[in-house]
Parts: sequence; C-alpha cells; structure tokens
Amino acid sequence: MSLHRNDERIPVAVLGATGSVGQRFIQLLADHPWFRVAELVASERSAGRRYGEIAPWRLSADLPEAAADLPVLDFDADLQSPLVFSALPGEVAGEIEERMARQGRALFSNSSAHRMDPDVPLLLAEVNPDHARAIEVQRANRDWSGFIVANSNCSAMHLVLALKPLQDAFGLEAVSVVTMQAVSGAGYPGVPSLDMIDNVVPFIPTEEEKMTEETQKILGRFDGAFTPADLVMTAQCNRVPVRDGHTECVSVRLGSSPAVEEVAAALANFTARPQEMELPSAPARPIVVRTEPNRPQPVLDRDTERGMASVVGRLRICPLLGYKFVVLGHNTVRGAAGASVLNAELLHAEGMLPL
Amino acid sequence: MSLHRNDERIPVAVLGATGSVGQRFIQLLADHPWFRVAELVASERSAGRRYGEIAPWRLSADLPEAAADLPVLDFDADLQSPLVFSALPGEVAGEIEERMARQGRALFSNSSAHRMDPDVPLLLAEVNPDHARAIEVQRANRDWSGFIVANSNCSAMHLVLALKPLQDAFGLEAVSVVTMQAVSGAGYPGVPSLDMIDNVVPFIPTEEEKMTEETQKILGRFDGAFTPADLVMTAQCNRVPVRDGHTECVSVRLGSSPAVEEVAAALANFTARPQEMELPSAPARPIVVRTEPNRPQPVLDRDTERGMASVVGRLRICPLLGYKFVVLGHNTVRGAAGASVLNAELLHAEGMLPL
Amino acid sequence: MSLHRNDERIPVAVLGATGSVGQRFIQLLADHPWFRVAELVASERSAGRRYGEIAPWRLSADLPEAAADLPVLDFDADLQSPLVFSALPGEVAGEIEERMARQGRALFSNSSAHRMDPDVPLLLAEVNPDHARAIEVQRANRDWSGFIVANSNCSAMHLVLALKPLQDAFGLEAVSVVTMQAVSGAGYPGVPSLDMIDNVVPFIPTEEEKMTEETQKILGRFDGAFTPADLVMTAQCNRVPVRDGHTECVSVRLGSSPAVEEVAAALANFTARPQEMELPSAPARPIVVRTEPNRPQPVLDRDTERGMASVVGRLRICPLLGYKFVVLGHNTVRGAAGASVLNAELLHAEGMLPL
Amino acid sequence: MSLHRNDERIPVAVLGATGSVGQRFIQLLADHPWFRVAELVASERSAGRRYGEIAPWRLSADLPEAAADLPVLDFDADLQSPLVFSALPGEVAGEIEERMARQGRALFSNSSAHRMDPDVPLLLAEVNPDHARAIEVQRANRDWSGFIVANSNCSAMHLVLALKPLQDAFGLEAVSVVTMQAVSGAGYPGVPSLDMIDNVVPFIPTEEEKMTEETQKILGRFDGAFTPADLVMTAQCNRVPVRDGHTECVSVRLGSSPAVEEVAAALANFTARPQEMELPSAPARPIVVRTEPNRPQPVLDRDTERGMASVVGRLRICPLLGYKFVVLGHNTVRGAAGASVLNAELLHAEGMLPL
Repeated sequence: MSLHRNDERIPVAVLGATGSVGQRFIQLLADHPWFRVAELVASERSAGRRYGEIAPWRLSADLPEAAADLPVLDFDADLQSPLVFSALPGEVAGEIEERMARQGRALFSNSSAHRMDPDVPLLLAEVNPDHARAIEVQRANRDWSGFIVANSNCSAMHLVLALKPLQDAFGLEAVSVVTMQAVSGAGYPGVPSLDMIDNVVPFIPTEEEKMTEETQKILGRFDGAFTPADLVMTAQCNRVPVRDGHTECVSVRLGSSPAVEEVAAALANFTARPQEMELPSAPARPIVVRTEPNRPQPVLDRDTERGMASVVGRLRICPLLGYKFVVLGHNTVRGAAGASVLNAELLHAEGMLPL
Repeated sequence: MSLHRNDERIPVAVLGATGSVGQRFIQLLADHPWFRVAELVASERSAGRRYGEIAPWRLSADLPEAAADLPVLDFDADLQSPLVFSALPGEVAGEIEERMARQGRALFSNSSAHRMDPDVPLLLAEVNPDHARAIEVQRANRDWSGFIVANSNCSAMHLVLALKPLQDAFGLEAVSVVTMQAVSGAGYPGVPSLDMIDNVVPFIPTEEEKMTEETQKILGRFDGAFTPADLVMTAQCNRVPVRDGHTECVSVRLGSSPAVEEVAAALANFTARPQEMELPSAPARPIVVRTEPNRPQPVLDRDTERGMASVVGRLRICPLLGYKFVVLGHNTVRGAAGASVLNAELLHAEGMLPL
Repeated sequence: MSLHRNDERIPVAVLGATGSVGQRFIQLLADHPWFRVAELVASERSAGRRYGEIAPWRLSADLPEAAADLPVLDFDADLQSPLVFSALPGEVAGEIEERMARQGRALFSNSSAHRMDPDVPLLLAEVNPDHARAIEVQRANRDWSGFIVANSNCSAMHLVLALKPLQDAFGLEAVSVVTMQAVSGAGYPGVPSLDMIDNVVPFIPTEEEKMTEETQKILGRFDGAFTPADLVMTAQCNRVPVRDGHTECVSVRLGSSPAVEEVAAALANFTARPQEMELPSAPARPIVVRTEPNRPQPVLDRDTERGMASVVGRLRICPLLGYKFVVLGHNTVRGAAGASVLNAELLHAEGMLPL
Repeated sequence: MSLHRNDERIPVAVLGATGSVGQRFIQLLADHPWFRVAELVASERSAGRRYGEIAPWRLSADLPEAAADLPVLDFDADLQSPLVFSALPGEVAGEIEERMARQGRALFSNSSAHRMDPDVPLLLAEVNPDHARAIEVQRANRDWSGFIVANSNCSAMHLVLALKPLQDAFGLEAVSVVTMQAVSGAGYPGVPSLDMIDNVVPFIPTEEEKMTEETQKILGRFDGAFTPADLVMTAQCNRVPVRDGHTECVSVRLGSSPAVEEVAAALANFTARPQEMELPSAPARPIVVRTEPNRPQPVLDRDTERGMASVVGRLRICPLLGYKFVVLGHNTVRGAAGASVLNAELLHAEGMLPL
C-alpha cells in the first residue's frame, strides 16, 4: 500500500467491485500508470470488511495486494475519487451512476442503464471518439458537473470494432451476425452448468436487441444529437460452453465491391486515436487478421494484445450479402472493463476529465 | 440369434460397421420389423473376428446381442444381403459402393462419395421422394441391376427438413445459416478434446460447400435430370463442445410475406409420404415447433421423436431477410443412419427394392 | 388423464415437484404399475397453477402428460395421497416431512433431514431391508400413524451397493473413496458453469461427512437400535463437469483374502430381496461388473439397467488396502428418486404401507 | 533473430519440437537468460521447412519469433547444441536420446524411455538433486561423454513435490492417490472429445505403474545405486475434461503424528537448492498451501508461480491413513518441460554440464 500513499496517480473508485466485471476492473487497473484503485464499492452485505476477505477472487492471476487491503464501502459512502468505474448490474446501476455524475465525478459505466440515453455517449475509443462531445449536451441537460460515459454490451463491442474500418472504407449497408458467447458474460454464478455441459442455449435475454441498437448508435453520427447508422441488422445470440471469448459469425453488405484482399487490408491496417496517442491500454493493433482456415478460436486467440484486440478470421465471399468472416474477442477485457478503462484514458489524454 | 434364423425379414449388410455411424445403423436396425442385420463389414484388420469382440461400442445403450455374435467380414467378402447400408468414410466409399450396386444390391449410403452424382438421388424421405425416379436413369447409365441412393450431410439434413414446408407454402429465395455442430459428426476419434474444452472451432473442412450444394440439390427438381433449387445460400459451420445434436441459426427470405404464425403453422403441420405410409422409422411429426424462448437445446431436444425429428424454435421476424429461427436435430440418427434407414423403408414400401 | 380416473393404483404425492429430483420422481412414476402421481407440491410461488405451465422441465424425455395437467399445491394443502415422496431440500424438509408422517402417511424421503435420526431407517432395498423394522420404533417414539423412510445421499448409494456383497462374503474393515460427482447432484441452478468449464472443484460442502456416516449406518445393524458398521472410512469428494453419473475410485480392506476373481463373482452375482420379489423398479442385476480396462464411464454406463444398477470396473489388487475398483451409478435415478421408489415398492410388497 | 547472433547463451536443441511438450519447451525457453533455442528437431515429414510454417502452434501466447524462423531438422541431422531437451514420445525416444548422450551432449528428457534405467537419475530439482551423482555411474557404464537426465511423469511430479517435505520432517510410510488428469497430458490429438464431453475416463494406460515406481525412485536413495523409497503406494488415475492441471486427492501415513498445522507448515515453508541458488525457472515457493475450503482448482491455481508450483489445499485428518489433502499442478509446465529446464539449470549452476 505504501507505494500508493504518495503517488500522484488519479484515485478511482470501482462500483460493483465483487462481481466478474468488477474483478476485471481491479485486475486491469492494478499497475495502471495514470489511475490507482482507491475505493471499492459493493452491496451492503459486503460493506465494512477488507476486500481480500470477502471477495471470492475468480480470475486466474492473484488478487492484487493493494486492492486486497482496501475496505469495501457501501453505495451510500462518501467517495473521494473523481473518477469512477461502474460494473453494476443494469437493474441497479441507473440511480447510483446518476448520483456520481451529479456529484461532479466522471463515471465510466459498463452497465446497460444509460447506454441508449439520448445525451450519453456510447463510446468505443477507436470507433467514435467524437461522440464524447455529447458530454457537453448531457451536462447542460442535466445540470451536472460530472458526466456518464457508457460502453457497449460485450457482444456488440467486437462486432463494431470490426465493422468500423469497413464502414469507413466501403460503406456499410447490412449486417447479419450469429454469436457464440462465453459464460463469463453472464457473471457469477450466471449460467448453470446443467445448461452448458454437452449443450448450447440459443437465447440470451435482451441480447439481440442490445446488440442491434448499440451497434447502430456507435456507428451513427453525433452532431448535437445522435443519429443511428443507416444499416439493416439482424442478430442471433447463443450461449456456448466457453469461459471467455465471444465468437461471432458475420456477413455484411458493403456500399461498394472491394476485393477480399482490400477488405482484409482495411481491417488489418486499422488504427485510430488510442493508437496515435499511445494510450496505456490501447492495443497496438485493434484488429488482428488471421489467415489460418480454422481461426480465431477462443482458447487460442482471446488474449491477443492482452485481450484488447478483436481477432478476425475466415474472411471470404458471402454469396448472399457479399462478405463474411468470424470475429472473436475477450468479452470481459475489451468487451467490458478494458473498454471502460480505455475510454477514461482517452478522455484524460484529451483533457476532458473534471479533475 | 435363434430369433433370426427363421425370420422373414430382409437381410441387410452394414459397411463400415465399427465406426460411429455404423454403430448407429446397428442400433437402429436392432428390432426393425422389416430388416435384420445379417452381415457386418469393416476394414481388414477387424475382419474374421466376432463383432462383439472388436467393436468398442460407444453408444450408451448396450450392443444388440445378435450383432455382437456376427463375424466381421472384409470388403472383398461375398455378401448375401440384397440391401446394404454404407457408413463408409467418403474417401474409401466410392468404389466399394459402386460394386454393391453393380452386383444388384440396393445400396443406401451415408457417405459423400456419390451424393452429387448427376444420376444419384440425394433422398430425404419427407422432402423429395420423387427424386427416387433418378434410380432408373442411374441403372440405365451405368448398366446396373442394383442402385445407389444417398442421403445428405448431417448439417444439411435438418435445415432442408425445416425449409421444405416453407418452400412449398411460400416460396424460398434465400437462406443464411450458421451452424453449431456436435462432435459425433466427425466420428471417432474425430475432434481432439484439446480443440473442444473451453473452445469453439469456427471451421469444418468442406462442410459449408457440402451443406450448400446438397441443400440446393434436395430442394431442386428431377425431371430426367436434376435442377438445383434457385435459391441463394450462405453457410458458416462451427464445431462446438456438444456430443450429439446440431444447432443451426437460420434466416430466410421467402417468396411471399406470411404472418409469423402462418410460418409456424406450415412447419408444425408438415407431414409427408413417410407419415402417410406409417413407415417404421418415420417420426409422427417430422418437425416439432417449440415456443419456449430458449429452445431447442441439444440435451433437451435431440431425442425428440427418437431422434428422427427436426426441432424448430425462436421463430421470429428477421429485419434483414424476413424470418429467422433455430433448428436442431440429432446428427447421427436423423442426420445420418436414421435417414438412410427411412429411405430404404420408403423404397421398400413403394416396391422399388430389387428383391 | 382418463386413464387415471378409475385406476386402482395408489395415489402418491411428490413434495418439491419442480426441482431436479422432483422431476425425476415424476418421470420414474409416470407408468408405474402400482403407484400413480396424484398430487404435486411445491413452494408457494408456484402453487395454484398447472404443473405443465410452471415447471421448466429439464429432463430429455418429455414431461408426462398426466403430470402436466395437475395443479401445483402448496405445502399447507390438505393432501389425499397416503404415500408421499419427498424431494425437498434438507433445510426445509424436516418439519414438512414430519407432518406427513404424523398425518398417517408413508413418507419416502430423499432429503438429508432425517437420515441420521436414531429411529429412521436409512433404507437401501438390496442392502438393509431389515432396517425397515425401525419403523415400529419410530411410530412408538413419536406416536405417529405414518412413518418416514429415508434413502441415502447419492454418493453413498452406489458405494454401499458395491460394498454390501463384499461385507457379506469377506468382511469389510476399511474403505477409502474418492468421488468425481456429476453436477445434477447439486440440483438446478446448482453449480455455476464458470466452476465447471475446464475445471474440477475438489470440495462439496458436508458431502464427505454424509457419505461416511450414512455408509456406516446402512451397513450397520438394527436390533431395536442402530449400530453403525465397524469400518474405518475416508472420503474425498470432487465435482467434475459431468451431467449425470457419479464415478468413485474405491480401495477396500476386507476381512479375508479372496482371489480377485472371487471378489468379482461376489459383486456380479449379487441379488437381494428386490430381485427375488421382482419389484417393478428393481434392476435384474443390482451390480454390473465390466471387464474392459477403461470402464465404467458416465456417458456409457450411467443408464445401465435403466439407471438402477451400480457398475463396477477395474477391479484389481490394491498394494495398500488389498483391493481397488471403480464404481459408477446414476445419481438422480438409483442415487435419489429411483431408490425412494424402490423402497416404497419393497414396503408395499411386504405389506408395510399404512393403506 | 539478431539478438541471438552474438549472444553468449548456450545453444540448445529441442527434440520433438512440434508436439505439445515440445511447444512448451520453446515457450519456456523463449527469453531464457542462460539458454537459447538454436535447433528444432522433429520427424521427417516436417523436416526442411521453417518451424513457423509447419507447427500448428496450440499455446495461447504467440509462437516466439526467433523459433518461428528456425528450420526444422530431422533426427539424423548433425546437431551443434551441447544441451538437448527431449519431448519425444516414449516409444521412439530410447535410441535417439542415447545417441545424443554418446555424442557428448547433456540430454534432459521428458520421455519415459530411460526413467527407470538403473544409472539414469530421475531428477526433480527440489527433491533429489543428489541423484545427479548417478551421471558419473552412467558415463562409466556406458562410456559416454554426455549423459541422460530424466524427469518424471506429470502425475508423479506434483505428488512427489508435496511428499518430499513430509518425508523429510515426519517420515513417509504409505500413500494413496487418486488423480483427475488434464487432457494436455496425452498430447495432441490425444484424447478424443467424445471421451471427454460429459464424461470421465477412469483409466490411463500404464500411468498408475509409472506414477508408483517413479515416486519410489525419486524419493529413494542413491549411493552408487538407487534404492527405492520404502513406502507402500496405491494409485488410481482418471482423465477428466480439463485442459491443463492435474488434480490429485492424496492420503498419507506418516512416520510420526504431527498436528495438521505442523504438516501445513512443513509444506508451506519448503524450499530447496533451486530456491537457494535462485535458478531462473525456480518458483519462489515450490509448494503453495491454500486454506480456502474449495481450492486448489485447475482454472484458478494451475498458473501459480508461472506454473512451476504445486498447490496444496484441503489439508486435514484422514481417519484411515492419518492425513489427506489435494495437490494440483500444471502438467505441461512443472509437470513436463519446466521440470526439464529446471534440471538443466541446476546442473549448469553446479558446473555439471559438459560444456
């Protein structure tokens, strides 16, 4: 802990610190150059004890020692951190997150509560950094000194990352996606093992709706208000017996007819502001294109670029829509906590944090 | 065995009797009212010994005793059975299957060797029974007294069964399918466990091509020659950690715009010649439509109608193509051996077996 | 339903009808020659609706139609059935089960609530049928017209069945067992999939204690009071990614030194009163001995004798204790509901039911 | 590669470089401070091409670039490296490994070929470093300028590591172990997924014999010849659906009667020569003792100390033998390649390599 006493890093709070995504926040922030985990907040029954005592740590690396020693605070605690990451479940997040913003904090949320609010940016740092301008509208609307920035659902995240360079280079008219999603996306205890051993569940409540509308918002425009992208989209979401890493089979209709090699090049060469600014959590390559016939695979590819990249493979002609491919990415790193941290880094680097 | 000595059932041979599909043939034929397993044929190294001694039986029910006592014959053995089921791998099946037909036998094949031959019917008893007329062309072309009837790949089987009533009632213009296929489809030893624990493999060699061209052949016309169905199709095939039961996410563009309820009714009410003729292996309902939001699932639904039905669920509007749904079926029962047996029953009932 | 209107079978109630074991009771009793499911009881929030509407049926065979139409009753309902099967969780079972017995019913319980009571028989029909005499003591002690008969924990069941013929033939001094238990033993939702994909959990709360003390009680004597068997026992219990079927590695020290073949014969030839009386649920062979080197295995062997047998394999010399082997059995059939049903059949056949 | 051109690290060859253990050797040696991978040897059909082209890399981290560029050599190639690691299968390893030693190289073998040879040390760096003295006997016997040092089977490795401090502190009389072993122990393709989905296989050919005799050799004495440890041991080995990490349930009879806390302390405080010498691959704590009731678990604990530690949990009284516990460790890191590398480091640090 002594390391942290005098350090000049920005103190941050994690809301929902004991859940799967909360643990991932703590892990990703453990050695962060700009931020330090100062406050851990969870539901009342955990509050008042040391985090290391009550958190059943479920990530394979050990619980960072500094976090283990922190007391767990309840939701009414008077927080000191100007920067807050929220891993709260959608059903409880709404009011708590708003309070944080009202109190002047920058709240980066992984919950679904405010994602589709008309003045909340649904930010994916490489894809729509300009949507951060919605913060000004949000503050004006709500008379807040702080703000809320959301990131998308884990299944939308990797899809959108792969679609962005195609939209930019060729135009994007239609998307058909079928997902095979990992169980960590449902948290813990989450999906019962009786549903996953020797089985697939072809349904995840509200996931197809979220995936569709969030994709359209992120790929849309912001010019004072949000206009969703004009693309037809259909999604079918499945749960499969995989721990981490969502695999998605995608077909797209583009606005032009590039060669497959051009599509591959657009994906492989994609970089954006996080790469230019060399943000601490930015992957060197946001999209990694693999050419082996049987990749990407969750066990082999989910940790690419420390879990922050989307891995695309099997890019080929689709007789129906034009092009098809498989995209895979880590659902609790880039797909959740990592995306939030990257958003905070982006806004910090751009001088937009209220510090 | 004594039961079989005097019985009047048609003696049948099973080629490739020790593999996964071969075992399924033996199981499905164990108490068949019309056929009895009389000869088991496998590769040389097994030949000459009792089946019960050499076959590592991998189905959960016990090996039928009558089969256990049969000697294993090699591929050059002089068979007595007029009716032969082939569970041979595609790479070795071609010549052996032709020899059987040349010798005057009715050969029902689950292999891929002759599926796309221009004079071999790719028969799915409920879907294209009229394609059996190609047998006459085949015999004339090849100067055979017997014939070959093929059935399709396991992934095409359940898709085609679900598409048929839609094609009949509404017209069928386009199909997009993403599969999540069980490992038993790859036989034994088949898929290594290191590829399936905590993983998905988004590639099955040649599967997408087979699935597409076989679907088009089965749903096409035969009027002296085959004309494939005029439908645009795209397929993405994945292997998932499931023992039995292929799950397929399907979107279709129909020729008209029925209400979802009409589509559901067309599927649920579908019956065909095997049901009318009450063939022994015919399911009462070839397609079972489920309305729970999270069905079908492999562990719960693959054994519907003793594994001979296709189970459809999640039927709903597709914003891109019109309608989407999930279809699931047992890949080694209806998807392989069971389909072959049903084909033989159909031709026997119609008096088309050369007996 | 009409079938049941006039039938003369004994009406039975199932307590905890919506859980995993409750569903198994309904399935096993569906076509029972002596008993018919007349009343289904579950917690309040289910009560008042049809079973078919509220029960998320999780067994692969379809929900029996007769059961689907029954209303779900709450725990305070005035039951008519003289015979009651309890699939209640241990923590709530105690008082409810006692009330049933007090009301004059025969209560066959799968819960742990009363297993170790000094006047409740822990009955395994093939092993200790004479313990049923404790019912008289129980009634006298508690002034009940009905009674409670318990069956053991699923992990103890198959172990005890395999130990009984060894105890009888050779004497039994010590047992060391390590289990690999299926997830269905924990009910639904039960074990989270994040604990079971690519994992083993080497701990099941209170399981080792139950397994040990229940084994000693069942293999002990009843002569007015229970005396546990005089054997030293150690157990280590693990949860593994298997749906159904507990696998147990056992070493035993016997009271004499038979040849391995004699041990095998004692196991394979074991039959007892349920077999002599040809009880409807009794397996023809309570213990099936397999000689292949790699059996028993859950997927291949758990359904032996319709899930009512214990399957023993790998019988061989143990350098430390004398003999070792693997025993496997279905944990929700013989290991739970099936054992209860067999107990009821035994007492009915012996005229001990209060009807 | 330029890094390696001038570097002074010892060039090493890896035999069997394309298999699972071979890949692990390449990964563990990638940034080694003393050794550099200079030569990769595999069977003929791979030879002559770049490793990166032919090796289907199956570890989650990327193939190290330096190794990717190396040509694959065949078994008759004239090697330059004085230090050789063998990941050959037992059935082909014997003669090739002998040739290496005859040519003056130090051969560290993970194969079973020479483990039980009376003049080959079966070395586990923390446990029996003095057995390295057998090298002199070996050279004299065989007239070799090089030598062979073997390491044990993966299942014996973690057991022996956990037994050593008990043997030292309390004496060790008897061991009973039941394993639940990961599929990576069988290499690739290894165990078929049909044997592992929803299943356990209670048999691994020759594993129980190896585990027993190797444990006794390692824990035995060398004083010119090997005397196996005088302990009674029984083993039952199972394959479970886990990628990496063997879990073992152990009971032991010690020579004295320490308190459980003393046993825990003996395990937790154990260090040995690799720790004293701070060898590059040595774990800081060879044995990590966990006190949570449900640990160790493969997914959570196999990577402890970069996969080089054995993790012990559930230490408690065993009514039969005295003490029982669970030990878990990574089977292809410490259980195979990592143990070999540590052995080479030990001998290098002690000046025993023929360089």
